[in-house]
Amino acid sequence: MSILAVGSFALDSVVTPFGKADRVLGGSAVFFSAAASILTEVNVVGVVGDDFPLENLSFLKDRGVNLTGIETEEGESFSWSASYHSDMNTRDTIETKLGVFEGFDPKIPEQFRQSDYVFLGNIDPVLQHKVLDQVTAPSLVACDTMNHWIESEREELIRLLNRVDLLLVNDEEARQLSGETGLVDASRWIQKRGPRMVVIKKGEHGAVLFSDDSIFSVPAFPLPCAFDPTGAGDAFAGGLLGHISEQGFASVADLRRAMAFGSVLGSFAVQEFSIEGLRTLSKSEILERVRALKVMTTFDMNEEG
Amino acid sequence: MSILAVGSFALDSVVTPFGKADRVLGGSAVFFSAAASILTEVNVVGVVGDDFPLENLSFLKDRGVNLTGIETEEGESFSWSASYHSDMNTRDTIETKLGVFEGFDPKIPEQFRQSDYVFLGNIDPVLQHKVLDQVTAPSLVACDTMNHWIESEREELIRLLNRVDLLLVNDEEARQLSGETGLVDASRWIQKRGPRMVVIKKGEHGAVLFSDDSIFSVPAFPLPCAFDPTGAGDAFAGGLLGHISEQGFASVADLRRAMAFGSVLGSFAVQEFSIEGLRTLSKSEILERVRALKVMTTFDMNEEG
Repeated sequence: MSILAVGSFALDSVVTPFGKADRVLGGSAVFFSAAASILTEVNVVGVVGDDFPLENLSFLKDRGVNLTGIETEEGESFSWSASYHSDMNTRDTIETKLGVFEGFDPKIPEQFRQSDYVFLGNIDPVLQHKVLDQVTAPSLVACDTMNHWIESEREELIRLLNRVDLLLVNDEEARQLSGETGLVDASRWIQKRGPRMVVIKKGEHGAVLFSDDSIFSVPAFPLPCAFDPTGAGDAFAGGLLGHISEQGFASVADLRRAMAFGSVLGSFAVQEFSIEGLRTLSKSEILERVRALKVMTTFDMNEEG
Repeated sequence: MSILAVGSFALDSVVTPFGKADRVLGGSAVFFSAAASILTEVNVVGVVGDDFPLENLSFLKDRGVNLTGIETEEGESFSWSASYHSDMNTRDTIETKLGVFEGFDPKIPEQFRQSDYVFLGNIDPVLQHKVLDQVTAPSLVACDTMNHWIESEREELIRLLNRVDLLLVNDEEARQLSGETGLVDASRWIQKRGPRMVVIKKGEHGAVLFSDDSIFSVPAFPLPCAFDPTGAGDAFAGGLLGHISEQGFASVADLRRAMAFGSVLGSFAVQEFSIEGLRTLSKSEILERVRALKVMTTFDMNEEG
């Protein structure tokens, strides 16, 4: 099976308490692909400026990612710089330069239109609609968004929800979108507007899946140190959809296991700057950590006791 | 088996986004006992003023809690008032009046001195030492503390750690006590100073157990609405130790299951003001929710797939 991933390609400059990185690979499509491609076939669509070091994406090509959907436009690539606070949970955005991303108008190559799964990275909901207009009956459409679109494109976003099977948002976004304080109510609100499944990402506190009437909770994989949180959510989405694309999606049990893959890919992403934690990662290292996560969350009922 | 619980008896005045409660039952010993007594025998020690409505604790007596260790002193009971912010994760303390609690000098009745388990509620570490000086070889000593003691009685607290098997703290307290940012490092720091086991409580994000080299993570039971977070941590400790006292503590598997009981008792505590969520709670309701928590955290590896 294969995934069509549409999102941003960025040059990130990041300062964390552990160091800094300057104009390194970033963006939702990059983090997503770097994670998902270890597990499954990925077709990626996006735009870069003529300053983008496409050669640094060759490791994705080596993994079989189809990069022919990346358009190069004259001008500067999307760039973003931010500084994380000492608790790593909050950050200040220093500068966002849209560059060629401003005129992004996703064109899905003919050969990608029948991808089994679609990941709509965090871009303008108007563009997310355009992507869906071009694809043919995917098994599952997953979508990410952010506070900016919830504020500025609320109507388009809510109309989009009706075309989405799985919405991935963080806890703040879920609250902002729904107007509900509790995550249970927030998810119900979202589910009523389309997505059968809602994944609420909580950073170092893990993630929760609401599907139909069932709830599944997975912790973040505990790390001695989260080096750079940038891209963790996209790597999570990549692990989740990557596993589903690899193994199929027959029941909610597959989705729960996929949540564990999401958590694990997120954990590898934050261990290094940029996509470095994903660049040489192997499937066996992922499986090892998924198994450890299972041990870490299992308890016996001892009903006889 | 039985637990000796030493802590505060308070009259709490609380404002939350959902309403307010005035001079209602509170305090670490009260929340702990209200939770643990559904599962096991509890002997409680503390001090109240002559204004304390002891008759409101009769439900504990009905459950077999031994209340003879509660001393009544002339004067006002410990009282505390606070207002929770809309996210319920933060609160402003409006007033703390120590009253008779200021002169608290715990005297452990002869009949309590051989209790199997000891819970040192959040009081001055100097007093926590005094409690341990009076007990005879308990199987397990569990201890709670708070930022106030970490700042003002650091030396006594660190000396106390060496006498404690299980430390329960929240994430902020773990960071403050250890000076470490990451919870893995913070727990290692604490474990080096005595406690074999460290439970880090994260409120709505659940709790993590560090024991020897193993980590176990349990989510908070998802509720549509957390009505009043006061006492959740003490109810968590009551559920955890209550289960251990009821079932025994043979291996880390028992402790993991006990963490689930802790999470569940915490969830019942926050569903109503004061101890109302625990007052008429039955063991079968607890078990039902523990089983639901197990379903909510279980995923299959599908290694064949």
